Amino acid sequence: MARWEPNASGRLREAAMALYTERGYEQTTVGDIAERAGLTARTFFRYFADKREVLFAGSEALEGALRSAVDEAPEDASPMQVVAAVLDGIAALIGRDRDYSRQRQVVIDATPELQERELIKLARLALVLRDALRARGVSDPEAGLAAETALAIVRVGFDRWINTDDERELADVLRESLARLETLVAP
Amino acid sequence: MARWEPNASGRLREAAMALYTERGYEQTTVGDIAERAGLTARTFFRYFADKREVLFAGSEALEGALRSAVDEAPEDASPMQVVAAVLDGIAALIGRDRDYSRQRQVVIDATPELQERELIKLARLALVLRDALRARGVSDPEAGLAAETALAIVRVGFDRWINTDDERELADVLRESLARLETLVAP
Repeated sequence: MARWEPNASGRLREAAMALYTERGYEQTTVGDIAERAGLTARTFFRYFADKREVLFAGSEALEGALRSAVDEAPEDASPMQVVAAVLDGIAALIGRDRDYSRQRQVVIDATPELQERELIKLARLALVLRDALRARGVSDPEAGLAAETALAIVRVGFDRWINTDDERELADVLRESLARLETLVAP
Repeated sequence: MARWEPNASGRLREAAMALYTERGYEQTTVGDIAERAGLTARTFFRYFADKREVLFAGSEALEGALRSAVDEAPEDASPMQVVAAVLDGIAALIGRDRDYSRQRQVVIDATPELQERELIKLARLALVLRDALRARGVSDPEAGLAAETALAIVRVGFDRWINTDDERELADVLRESLARLETLVAP
């Protein structure tokens, strides 16, 4: 009989991050995570497929935010205006907790398997955005270029956001990166 | 005693590609590849670490071409002028054999493990280019943005090049993608 546990997924995520940071990702088991969270392994598997997915559980929400931003952009928005809206949507979702983002990045940078999973996640996001732009009538190769450019900005801006001391919001850093890119590629 | 085999690596690569296409990557062994090439497994391992690396043996040459293009760019070239030179360098290397590139892409698209390896290769190229731009004095985040933009163009342009019927050179397709990107992101 499954007992309802308040905020089980949040507790598991926190426990996992603490253990990955303390003893390393490889050295942590699902049993360790559940124990630290005061829950059972069975409860863990109700929320996450494995210990890796604790770090990537936000991927679907990220795809959702991206699609919503594209859907809600004005009909006459240019592809790069849609990209700007997508950057805002992504920032609203992952820009809330810089300490968590930093901790997560340290764990990922230490583990090739996680770096690969992160690359796959971002590549997939680019494809989702490309297809969403196509669905709005943006033709190729513009849809692909705009989508890849958006992800380039996310990669560079996110890295900047977690590695600076100033307290700027992620949304501002992404917007600034977009402006810098515009200047950079101006012929 | 190792017998010298003329063009062993080329023969192994051709044999591997033929087998990956005929029976699939997963179903092909190093022994199969060596046999098809009329060589021994021992000879195979003199050239390639494993059957996957047959498809990625060009990665080092690609990094070399990228570094050379950056090194040889005029001192006063803008970051995007350096990027244009890098695109030419990459095209000169991988743009020679469209049939091979197409076959290779079909094999990669069919196998998640190979898609991951390709993503890692391209992400690594972006870092190499970013660092080479930094070494020229390009500051952050411009170095990262220019490097990610270059790889965005390679991804989109390469995909376009192998999926169109017209006989344009890869260098032309990449240059065109760069021009389209400039138009696209112009404020």
